[in-house]
Amino acid sequence: MTGTASKNRQWVLAAHPDGKATADTWRMIDSPMPEPGPGQILVRTLWLSVDPYMRGRIAAAGNYTKGVAPGELMQGGGVGEVILSNHPAWTPGDLVESMTFGWQEYAVLSPDLPGAARANRVNPDIAPPEAALSWLGMPGLTAYVGMIEIARPKPGDTVLVSAASGAVGQMVGQIAKLQGARAVAIAGSDDKLAWCRELGFDAGINYRTAGDMKAAIAGACPGGVNVFFDNTGGPIHDAALANLATHARVVICGRIAVVDQAPEDDIGLRASARLIVTRSMIQGLVVFDWWHLRDEAMARIAAWHRDGRFRFRHDVLDGFERMPEAFLRMMAGDNFGKQVVRVA
Amino acid sequence: MTGTASKNRQWVLAAHPDGKATADTWRMIDSPMPEPGPGQILVRTLWLSVDPYMRGRIAAAGNYTKGVAPGELMQGGGVGEVILSNHPAWTPGDLVESMTFGWQEYAVLSPDLPGAARANRVNPDIAPPEAALSWLGMPGLTAYVGMIEIARPKPGDTVLVSAASGAVGQMVGQIAKLQGARAVAIAGSDDKLAWCRELGFDAGINYRTAGDMKAAIAGACPGGVNVFFDNTGGPIHDAALANLATHARVVICGRIAVVDQAPEDDIGLRASARLIVTRSMIQGLVVFDWWHLRDEAMARIAAWHRDGRFRFRHDVLDGFERMPEAFLRMMAGDNFGKQVVRVA
Repeated sequence: MTGTASKNRQWVLAAHPDGKATADTWRMIDSPMPEPGPGQILVRTLWLSVDPYMRGRIAAAGNYTKGVAPGELMQGGGVGEVILSNHPAWTPGDLVESMTFGWQEYAVLSPDLPGAARANRVNPDIAPPEAALSWLGMPGLTAYVGMIEIARPKPGDTVLVSAASGAVGQMVGQIAKLQGARAVAIAGSDDKLAWCRELGFDAGINYRTAGDMKAAIAGACPGGVNVFFDNTGGPIHDAALANLATHARVVICGRIAVVDQAPEDDIGLRASARLIVTRSMIQGLVVFDWWHLRDEAMARIAAWHRDGRFRFRHDVLDGFERMPEAFLRMMAGDNFGKQVVRVA
Repeated sequence: MTGTASKNRQWVLAAHPDGKATADTWRMIDSPMPEPGPGQILVRTLWLSVDPYMRGRIAAAGNYTKGVAPGELMQGGGVGEVILSNHPAWTPGDLVESMTFGWQEYAVLSPDLPGAARANRVNPDIAPPEAALSWLGMPGLTAYVGMIEIARPKPGDTVLVSAASGAVGQMVGQIAKLQGARAVAIAGSDDKLAWCRELGFDAGINYRTAGDMKAAIAGACPGGVNVFFDNTGGPIHDAALANLATHARVVICGRIAVVDQAPEDDIGLRASARLIVTRSMIQGLVVFDWWHLRDEAMARIAAWHRDGRFRFRHDVLDGFERMPEAFLRMMAGDNFGKQVVRVA
């Protein structure tokens, strides 16, 4: 274990947030260096991801999977380097990605766990390692499944995506273009929208300055919205639903705009009238249901990347101690691109 | 044209309703007896249907298809007897059903029009003629498509249906039972719920007396709602959505509870949180999209009927002059079973 420390810094949940998460939602502790058991590997964390789904994991109320209790290690995905292996397929020096890192400097992984708990090999010849936390990882799979499996845009369709310069949104827009559809971005700054234009989006709406979002979407989507990929929820959701075209497909991926509200307080447009008149469909998406498609999706996305058919932007913070800052930045929409933290 | 009158009474739209439709929404006029052209048939109306979709047709705002302008004949389906035929396949005395009757005592039909405008033969040996306006017609197809094609209940699923003793609701619950699912009725009186019990529904909720509908649904659906067939919209919709089980399917068929409101004033629970957490799907249903399945659906429903596998209740008003009354009765939920009018 050359070069490893004797202790392992970890971020644990201090308390379930009451409303917005704050810097006090987590606290850092020193733990003993973990020991890999049979079939396990010890990894040094190189990159950690912050993602909106984590807000659900730290909620006091139930979520779709087991959350984090106060005092427990914060959950999250990362990329690391194997430094000790009790598993025949893994060797020190290998790069590995897994959703099971947790916010810590060293992690013990069980590479053969099923589904989203699996450890995946990271090949630095294909992409920089942090891509395994973005376009070549969970957010990429989210965009892929939402578009290719659920929304299925056809050539000529208009695809509207909120949080368009974020981890999932960037890929949604570019997959829309790869499918021959028109892509319309919603984002919170003109800089973000300029980046979306560089990615190939056909139009953009700055929700902070647009005023009447229903009218703004109608202007940017004159034939109506065939696919709405919703990462934000809230008033943007209502404005998009008011503009659905016939037989529209709405993927509900996130609700970052209202995620600090209790679901029963999240009030807005009832979709019934629009859904009936347009015969549209709304589908909730949890990417962890779709892990069986991960290898297929990653191979396809890697091929698009190899052919230079998409671009991607990360927002990098340096330093393990900045994990809460990175999370809060993303929740406030102050990141520009997929938020990651370079740990080592 | 033995036995026919020289004039044809018709209900025409007097004015688009502002809010609720009233008795003054329509007025009756005398028109000349219509003359069938080549390939057409003249029919005497025996039964007319009133259905919630008609509220959309008389709205001033746009709907999914062409509505009725003031002064125009009110649209609607009916069953009649052929009294004059210029079509080789039809003979005087034949019984015929079509969505293109209109609210009038005599109608000229073009039997070969495509889709939902087609004229369908009514066989009185299979069922009483008015069944062609209910379980062996459009409402039956609505329930069939919503359940068999969209919601696809599995054995053990709990299927919740609003307006459960209505034209569509009765069939939804019984199709749920035929698929091995549990059926839970929501209706507006204990008499209606008693009837639903006779039909085989496992439980019922009287929305007028239940108080907290979210809690009432939780009590009647302890494992959550796997399928919600929504005929009403409004607060019942919200209460059902708050009780979705994982991978639930919601069919939005109607919104009679809020149909007099403009869509942009219909505010309630935003479904995002529940849709994501439960990975559920909401689909708007317009039965006229599914007319290509009509023959298949009617054959299957007729077979269930022949085997005595379901029952059905009509609410019959007598007299052509009562068409507006019948419509308003249904909109108020004062009908008990599928509302039809016996014209002759």
